[in-house]
Amino acid sequence: MPVNVFFAAGPEHWPDYRIPLQNALAATGVDAVLADRAEDPAAVDYIVYSPGGIIADFTPFTRCKAVLNLWAGVEKIVGNATLTQPLCRMVDPAMTESMVEWVVGHALRHHLGMDRDIRSPAPHWDQISPPIARERPVAMLGMGALGQACAQALAALNFPVTGWSRTAKEVPGIPCLHGEAGLEAVLRQAQIVVTLLPRTAETENLLDARRLGWLPRGAFIINPGRGPLIDDDALLAALDAGQIAHATLDVFRVEPLPPDHSFWAHSGVTVTPHVAASTKPVTAAGVVAENIRRAEAGEPLLYLVDRARGY
Amino acid sequence: MPVNVFFAAGPEHWPDYRIPLQNALAATGVDAVLADRAEDPAAVDYIVYSPGGIIADFTPFTRCKAVLNLWAGVEKIVGNATLTQPLCRMVDPAMTESMVEWVVGHALRHHLGMDRDIRSPAPHWDQISPPIARERPVAMLGMGALGQACAQALAALNFPVTGWSRTAKEVPGIPCLHGEAGLEAVLRQAQIVVTLLPRTAETENLLDARRLGWLPRGAFIINPGRGPLIDDDALLAALDAGQIAHATLDVFRVEPLPPDHSFWAHSGVTVTPHVAASTKPVTAAGVVAENIRRAEAGEPLLYLVDRARGY
Repeated sequence: MPVNVFFAAGPEHWPDYRIPLQNALAATGVDAVLADRAEDPAAVDYIVYSPGGIIADFTPFTRCKAVLNLWAGVEKIVGNATLTQPLCRMVDPAMTESMVEWVVGHALRHHLGMDRDIRSPAPHWDQISPPIARERPVAMLGMGALGQACAQALAALNFPVTGWSRTAKEVPGIPCLHGEAGLEAVLRQAQIVVTLLPRTAETENLLDARRLGWLPRGAFIINPGRGPLIDDDALLAALDAGQIAHATLDVFRVEPLPPDHSFWAHSGVTVTPHVAASTKPVTAAGVVAENIRRAEAGEPLLYLVDRARGY
Repeated sequence: MPVNVFFAAGPEHWPDYRIPLQNALAATGVDAVLADRAEDPAAVDYIVYSPGGIIADFTPFTRCKAVLNLWAGVEKIVGNATLTQPLCRMVDPAMTESMVEWVVGHALRHHLGMDRDIRSPAPHWDQISPPIARERPVAMLGMGALGQACAQALAALNFPVTGWSRTAKEVPGIPCLHGEAGLEAVLRQAQIVVTLLPRTAETENLLDARRLGWLPRGAFIINPGRGPLIDDDALLAALDAGQIAHATLDVFRVEPLPPDHSFWAHSGVTVTPHVAASTKPVTAAGVVAENIRRAEAGEPLLYLVDRARGY
């Protein structure tokens, strides 16, 4: 009997995902029926989901064996009390690559001082030579799959990268610190800070006024993680004071970022519209299909969310 | 008897180089006297030079065993008929690193479409997702020390890089083509072109109207090599026609680029003031000292210029 896969990630994603998911399921050998609606919730075996998806109450899906999220972040769904099924995050290899490209690109942009030449088309010939990357320490806050990949790509370009996470981690080639004392040590010497932590109660306002003050004057902030990792008002004050030279932000407490938000008009802030890493249908469909194959074969699921931890 | 080393790279560089050169010479064990003037040219054993240096006539330096250039480019000195001594180019490890950082940074900038967010601070939320780097072919024109290093760094970020040089080359991990047919094949599929060739009679106007026309529409040009590699008027016409989406240029036929040059005002051109790769005194001094040590020990010189070839 085929398994029923309900695509509940929203109608706007269905055209992009329908064929890749069908192909990926066929490639795994699982006999599956894929649909974008579920007339009988009790007959659904797997739910493909996204943060803006079309289910608020998971209670009727009594037979559902797993909810498979298409995005890396699960903070909008992990607290849903009706969701009792196993929940998996997306770790898409193409999404990881696009995150690495975005983070390395913006780190090099700030390192090289590119904006001077991009924003000032008036003739100027100031031969300001930046230090080389090995003289520019980087702090990578968050050493999950995305943080590790970004840290290693920056280290390959000779940036001295130090990783930080809430709990101790060992990552090949990257010195890692943890806890509050580790955070202070990492920030005290970082000229570029990348925030790639999940959004949890513990990470909210991780970069507040006090911790922004630990950075050397003129540091750069790059946030492709989650908006609430940074205290917006503390960041604006640190920018105005020159403590932070520039912040490049891809994520915000409210998205799209409201037109009247101070970030838009601030010359020290670059806003990008949550594009650092987007899931790519072909590769993401492969991850979803592989998890369905695993569940059917009784193997452990990939990227299973720890509900207590929140990611 | 100590060897006499004459620093003729110009008084503006002497403060930066005096101590690094003294230290580097001492480290090699060569007994050397370093000075920024030469009262008796016939007593000079080695000349440290740069393109804007203070010697036009090398004839009086009858005992000089080598002229050691502080820059990678030697086109302003290689044709000097009075220069009969061995001439060495600079291949500075730190200069190579800064070139890699500049090239990778601007390649990622164009790949990600960063300028949209840097130049338009007005509120906008267009979630245009770029392809991933493995879908963005790059042509590296010039596969010398700098071109190879840039090609390998871009390939490490998954860009499919094809190298091109005038004569056949084998480079680990990078497919390389050569000659006119190879140039057409490389350009026909390149979305980003980096020009890192030496300036010679053969490379002048390498990218002319015909060859710019071989590129896929909307390609990006990045020139950190030499201004004359590109036909300025052909480039401006290709930009106006949309054939080239953007050109980022670090080098020009006349430097500083004159304030009335069309490149300054063109929205499709980013001018950087010849900063992609600058020699760093500490590492460059080590290369100069090593070549003096080699010459004194009768060993072959590093980075010896082939006068006929011009680099």
